[in-house]
Amino acid sequence: MKALVYHGPGKKSWDEKPKPTIAKATDAVVKMYKTTICGTDLHILKGDVPEVTDGRILGHEGVGVIEEVGTAVTNFKKGDRVLISCISSCGKCEYCKKGMYSHCEKGGWILGHLIDGTQAEYARIPFADNSLYHIPENVDEEAIVMLSDILPTGFECGVLNGQIKPGDTVAIVGAGPIGLAVLLTAQFYTPSAIIMIDLDDNRLQATKTFGATHTINSQQEDPVTKVFSLTQNKGVDVAIEAVGIPATFELCESIIAPGGHIANIGVHGKSVALHLETLWSKNITITTRLVDTVTTPMLLKTVSSKKIDPTKLITHRFALQNIMQAYDTFQNAARDKTLKVILTNEG
Amino acid sequence: MKALVYHGPGKKSWDEKPKPTIAKATDAVVKMYKTTICGTDLHILKGDVPEVTDGRILGHEGVGVIEEVGTAVTNFKKGDRVLISCISSCGKCEYCKKGMYSHCEKGGWILGHLIDGTQAEYARIPFADNSLYHIPENVDEEAIVMLSDILPTGFECGVLNGQIKPGDTVAIVGAGPIGLAVLLTAQFYTPSAIIMIDLDDNRLQATKTFGATHTINSQQEDPVTKVFSLTQNKGVDVAIEAVGIPATFELCESIIAPGGHIANIGVHGKSVALHLETLWSKNITITTRLVDTVTTPMLLKTVSSKKIDPTKLITHRFALQNIMQAYDTFQNAARDKTLKVILTNEG
Amino acid sequence: MKALVYHGPGKKSWDEKPKPTIAKATDAVVKMYKTTICGTDLHILKGDVPEVTDGRILGHEGVGVIEEVGTAVTNFKKGDRVLISCISSCGKCEYCKKGMYSHCEKGGWILGHLIDGTQAEYARIPFADNSLYHIPENVDEEAIVMLSDILPTGFECGVLNGQIKPGDTVAIVGAGPIGLAVLLTAQFYTPSAIIMIDLDDNRLQATKTFGATHTINSQQEDPVTKVFSLTQNKGVDVAIEAVGIPATFELCESIIAPGGHIANIGVHGKSVALHLETLWSKNITITTRLVDTVTTPMLLKTVSSKKIDPTKLITHRFALQNIMQAYDTFQNAARDKTLKVILTNEG
Amino acid sequence: MKALVYHGPGKKSWDEKPKPTIAKATDAVVKMYKTTICGTDLHILKGDVPEVTDGRILGHEGVGVIEEVGTAVTNFKKGDRVLISCISSCGKCEYCKKGMYSHCEKGGWILGHLIDGTQAEYARIPFADNSLYHIPENVDEEAIVMLSDILPTGFECGVLNGQIKPGDTVAIVGAGPIGLAVLLTAQFYTPSAIIMIDLDDNRLQATKTFGATHTINSQQEDPVTKVFSLTQNKGVDVAIEAVGIPATFELCESIIAPGGHIANIGVHGKSVALHLETLWSKNITITTRLVDTVTTPMLLKTVSSKKIDPTKLITHRFALQNIMQAYDTFQNAARDKTLKVILTNEG
Repeated sequence: MKALVYHGPGKKSWDEKPKPTIAKATDAVVKMYKTTICGTDLHILKGDVPEVTDGRILGHEGVGVIEEVGTAVTNFKKGDRVLISCISSCGKCEYCKKGMYSHCEKGGWILGHLIDGTQAEYARIPFADNSLYHIPENVDEEAIVMLSDILPTGFECGVLNGQIKPGDTVAIVGAGPIGLAVLLTAQFYTPSAIIMIDLDDNRLQATKTFGATHTINSQQEDPVTKVFSLTQNKGVDVAIEAVGIPATFELCESIIAPGGHIANIGVHGKSVALHLETLWSKNITITTRLVDTVTTPMLLKTVSSKKIDPTKLITHRFALQNIMQAYDTFQNAARDKTLKVILTNEG
Repeated sequence: MKALVYHGPGKKSWDEKPKPTIAKATDAVVKMYKTTICGTDLHILKGDVPEVTDGRILGHEGVGVIEEVGTAVTNFKKGDRVLISCISSCGKCEYCKKGMYSHCEKGGWILGHLIDGTQAEYARIPFADNSLYHIPENVDEEAIVMLSDILPTGFECGVLNGQIKPGDTVAIVGAGPIGLAVLLTAQFYTPSAIIMIDLDDNRLQATKTFGATHTINSQQEDPVTKVFSLTQNKGVDVAIEAVGIPATFELCESIIAPGGHIANIGVHGKSVALHLETLWSKNITITTRLVDTVTTPMLLKTVSSKKIDPTKLITHRFALQNIMQAYDTFQNAARDKTLKVILTNEG
Repeated sequence: MKALVYHGPGKKSWDEKPKPTIAKATDAVVKMYKTTICGTDLHILKGDVPEVTDGRILGHEGVGVIEEVGTAVTNFKKGDRVLISCISSCGKCEYCKKGMYSHCEKGGWILGHLIDGTQAEYARIPFADNSLYHIPENVDEEAIVMLSDILPTGFECGVLNGQIKPGDTVAIVGAGPIGLAVLLTAQFYTPSAIIMIDLDDNRLQATKTFGATHTINSQQEDPVTKVFSLTQNKGVDVAIEAVGIPATFELCESIIAPGGHIANIGVHGKSVALHLETLWSKNITITTRLVDTVTTPMLLKTVSSKKIDPTKLITHRFALQNIMQAYDTFQNAARDKTLKVILTNEG
Repeated sequence: MKALVYHGPGKKSWDEKPKPTIAKATDAVVKMYKTTICGTDLHILKGDVPEVTDGRILGHEGVGVIEEVGTAVTNFKKGDRVLISCISSCGKCEYCKKGMYSHCEKGGWILGHLIDGTQAEYARIPFADNSLYHIPENVDEEAIVMLSDILPTGFECGVLNGQIKPGDTVAIVGAGPIGLAVLLTAQFYTPSAIIMIDLDDNRLQATKTFGATHTINSQQEDPVTKVFSLTQNKGVDVAIEAVGIPATFELCESIIAPGGHIANIGVHGKSVALHLETLWSKNITITTRLVDTVTTPMLLKTVSSKKIDPTKLITHRFALQNIMQAYDTFQNAARDKTLKVILTNEG
């Protein structure tokens, strides 16, 4: 079969690789229908994720059809259409039992990371019963691809951890795909204001169609001053960091109201300054989280019932075999106004 | 009357001052029975709290008897024995309605800070109906003094914010009075282990009689290594910072288990490094809080029913008129093995 | 002034009454702009609420302008436009401090019940600081009238107690004004399905425009069978009783899924059969509640920010002086397709 | 092997049966060390649980050693000492993922019910990875037997569902083994008062040594009057029903304070009267639950760390081969002052 293979920092190619087979009784092999590219894949390509080694098939998202299951798999059978979660869950370790699948002792984020992934014609999925989901009838498969990673990430790490309530004021720092996933799912809880903060006017403009009530271009105006002016000088109830650098996290610290919640989503490469000299008495809560995908069943219900339309995140579509071109488009997001790309296996 | 008066950094004296009177209809004047000294009073004396000005009577803790009430006070009458909360709550602003009395728009921590306090023969208490509590029959008044500040602070900022559950492992960094208040109230939730970390062997030894299951002298052994060895290499479920310096907060970051809670209590003078490069994916929660004293009714019930004995925190007793000597003992805590002192108004 | 006065079961009249004055320092006198009639007022008129005595001015809802305040009132001044809460809260008893204003030791539901109410040209409001709310600029006053009682009742007793989550299936039994208030506010949490159950096709038809996804006329089809067919044979996650008779409560018991929540809102006159012989092992939660109006600030934010339009509940408008006619319309709700009426004081 | 076999209502015998073998890849076969008898076993013997058929080996509790595991079992191996949960959890259905193991689509309570149980020399345990727990070193095996059913039942259905908080007043109706399990685990949350209500003075006397603060013999005094006199006329914050008949559930309704929680544990054979005519406005919460055993890991930690001593529940010990005699003692609990019996497999 063909697959997108990592060959060390900066190098990848569309290679012939052996079709995966069942390695353990809990595995499934999935013929991929559709997959996508994640910001994390770009991190890997930069060499920022050293545990990914030469020869690894990338990708941790997608939908497909069950080709074969191991003997211990009982929830799925050949022919079932499935959503692949970016997080593999064994279902029986201490963390899985607590719903913290991200820290599964044998799983977690392993696809396209520690084992081969989904940017391929076929993929082997470990712990299939706890890591795949049936695709409901009459639901757009491209919408479902957004449930592999980006929607649960935005929802769990941002919206749930931020404890957004009806009437709240929310600031989302970063209007990339993750920030937009937060913006979409934040509306499940009916905040009164959602303020998007970014550097890119195009992106900010787009957020209006996703439900943002206000936008701030932090290169053009001081975001702290603006947030306070928008919130009767109180700051926001919830600030969500969706970038991953010190400046944006510290911005969240600067705009949070007493009693507020800062929810970090960004993947940070270095430490940030936590201003306890002012925050110690402000009754705030800061959370971090690697997505657990424990809300995937809930999100599937909201998509099935048309309460949310994740296809708004998709800006470009390619045949899977043109994935090198899709990477180019995804890497040049500002140039091409790219959010998420869909790759369809036409084989 | 006599009172302990602040006269600028480093200066205080036991002065004659006018007896307070009712200034607003919601005030009460309390004749003090017993008061105490807080670490915050020492901060003020160092000049660290510049809004405290020359002439201010210090103190924000104590019990007494109602001498007089304003016309709008309905919960109390002359002769009632009362606990004075360190936090004044108007009961009708946005924050008070949310139970966040610490951020009361007209109150909060004002006693011995923005208005005269309780280290005096009499004190004026604003918003008496929402800031005083009846002392139950048959309860030791000295125990009740510990409910003005130190017990709700340890309980709310440490135990509740840390979300301690039965079976949890808990580390408390700092074995001073606040750390001990956490230690006492943490046991309300039956953690399986409470590890005290401090530099002072005397204090650590004492924590054993308060319920600590393990102690670590962080000058004598590496606390991170020790905590991991005590927790099957997982780290603690809850880490509570009760010191207020970067090193102790960062220690909490180093010993927290995935999914864990770091509850800050310490009053910090500068920022700390938040190691998001490792914590971003660990699903942790960090909280800050100025005590709200919203749990004072709950704590009164636990003291009345003998579920907790706060008098264990009291090491020294003085007549109120000897408060200068009491300050000396409190400031030399290591020398005198001081935890909390009680000052009794013998007049 | 003129007021609607109760004169014993079945009797009411539009009488001349003395204009109210400040009786306690915490009172305000409000000149009424707009008020409405509640189902509870009809209960009183039937004689079902014996503590309401001859001569009582009815009504516990409305908006107006402050005419005068007592000396202890600090949040409001003459000329402020205010929302009157149906629940009076002293702000300083045990229950008020817990946010359970409905059980306030000196307040609770007293307006138009134990003291004179709001169906009058003027009304005295006790505990004004904790029982009135400023009306935001640019918000429709008629929308705000719906926040006196019906919206917080539907939201607190139904939606919050029912713990509606994104993706949930919800059944609301009873499509009267309260059921519709639940329907409107349930959408704050984005359930996947909201099934309205009633006997009246007109009402059911109307619920579609309020956001119902399914309707069941329980006279025309078996609601239990239908609910199970709509929910993949599981039953609903949340069942909300908004009628107040045994049959509708027991219907909720019959359609609830394992792990589900039954939230009672109805005012019941007799006991119901709780089928513990089947429910004991179904992990369900049943709640009761008299509205606390503790969410009024939250609801004000959702109305101000146009997240909800409560004016959809208003079907008829009258001058206050025509209140006898308004009662007739409200009492003949099926005949006149009445939901809520608005009475405007044109004086 | 030998086993206790049900032969229809009123009939049981100690029979020779085939030793169980691995039937599915997720099974384990456990050589029993110790088991016990549950009130549910007596219900079965009365014929109250018709799905239990002639030939069924009874019992759903116990500890033992792994004799053999199926190929899909990864958490356990031959020779491991294990606690058997009364609830079997597949770990991968909708309910198991939500922590509601009691409603597992393929498991739930099946041992000694739908499949052969643990009152035998060997037992086959389905879904071993999610239904067995390693026994910690240095912990009394008899204490661990109490974690199969009775302690998680008391804790989850009573204490957690009742939401007991520090300082609460709690009434437990029924001082049998389940009521005592509630009493033991309620103390994890430090209520200020625990009132035990029963008909049997011997049992009530015993509860004092388990931590009860008050006892009421409801044959000798009116329990409603007494509860109100013990609670300053407020009623209890939490009432826990541990009997399973209408009178005891309705007693809980009569003694609950506004805002309180009624947690049902009892297995009811008929409906009870829910007095909504008084409760509709009391802001109460009623819960039902079949134990999920989702807290078994937490309970294991509390037992390992000596925070609770479940062996206090054990009054009689027998060799497993004398189980007929043990049943006689358990069935004559009042005569023999029996709480829980331990049966040891001496083979």
